[in-house]
Amino acid sequence: MELTAEQHRAKMQRRQEVQQQRIADRQITKGLVIVNTGDGKGKTTAALGMVLRSLGHGYKVAIVQFIKGAWEPAEKKIFGAWSEQLVFHALGEGFTWDTQDRDRDIAKTQEAWALGLSYIQNPAYKLILLDEVNIALKLGYLDVETVIAGLRTKPDDSHVILTGRGAPASLIEFADLVTRMELVKHPFREQGVKAQAGIEF
Amino acid sequence: MELTAEQHRAKMQRRQEVQQQRIADRQITKGLVIVNTGDGKGKTTAALGMVLRSLGHGYKVAIVQFIKGAWEPAEKKIFGAWSEQLVFHALGEGFTWDTQDRDRDIAKTQEAWALGLSYIQNPAYKLILLDEVNIALKLGYLDVETVIAGLRTKPDDSHVILTGRGAPASLIEFADLVTRMELVKHPFREQGVKAQAGIEF
Repeated sequence: MELTAEQHRAKMQRRQEVQQQRIADRQITKGLVIVNTGDGKGKTTAALGMVLRSLGHGYKVAIVQFIKGAWEPAEKKIFGAWSEQLVFHALGEGFTWDTQDRDRDIAKTQEAWALGLSYIQNPAYKLILLDEVNIALKLGYLDVETVIAGLRTKPDDSHVILTGRGAPASLIEFADLVTRMELVKHPFREQGVKAQAGIEF
Repeated sequence: MELTAEQHRAKMQRRQEVQQQRIADRQITKGLVIVNTGDGKGKTTAALGMVLRSLGHGYKVAIVQFIKGAWEPAEKKIFGAWSEQLVFHALGEGFTWDTQDRDRDIAKTQEAWALGLSYIQNPAYKLILLDEVNIALKLGYLDVETVIAGLRTKPDDSHVILTGRGAPASLIEFADLVTRMELVKHPFREQGVKAQAGIEF
């Protein structure tokens, strides 16, 4: 049933009041532990969007990349302009099926975590992105309880984002904000489309 | 059961072969219709990550914002550096509960679509982001068949991203790549945490 313009206005006015009350009720500022997981796209990409917002606000940001190697050229070009605020460490050496050396992968993961933790505990950094760390947790290369204990030591006002599929249940339980990116349709699988500039890298 | 280092190496080698075969099988390059929907966070943020990658590749990008108003200051600071490659139009005037005027919202939506379509049909633009357009479709301010007919007219090599919750089934059916951002946990609702710089804006 179509509302008249006046009914619509009245309905939206009530909705605006509800919305304003909701905003008024939310007064807490809090550094968040954020998890982006699931099999869909956008886990890292959405985290990079938050990195950009933080850079735009003038905050210092640290990115520690657990699985993949160096920046793609396009990302390097973008983030290269922000080197005074942004540090980036790629400790991954490609996917585990590329390295084929579990001991080395575990050692690299432990090194990445130690570095990530140093930024997590550094009050100068407002946002820390532990990219693909969930995969390291899932593979057992890093202990989830160690990570949770480390997250407990972060300053109150900083945010930490943990990305990657397969986030462990105890991490989801501990986190403040969790989003699951669900794959509904993917042209790789269904149409044989390859990775393309601007989309995947 | 723990694999030995040698068993791990052999397993990862097989996995690498499968992975390489998969990549070899995917030879199609295709402009994609991408939909980011669902109730979770990251729909627009992930799209902005793709915008950045495209800018890093030197492509021209157009963003048409259907519901929200102007850029947040942090986004403006970031994207302001890319004004030669990026056009941004905010035709929304805030949420519908702020305007309370349906006829005006519909007129603005139609205007935004006409503008978006002009970029979709312009071969100079490699990526077009129709931000929050799904909400306009859901509210019936814009007809989904009109939008699909417009998407059919895009050049073969350009990508269009449509974001917003409530994407219609026929749009999902038509799209190449669809991700649903599912809300697992949100500190707004559960802890009364307010929108924070770097996270929401």
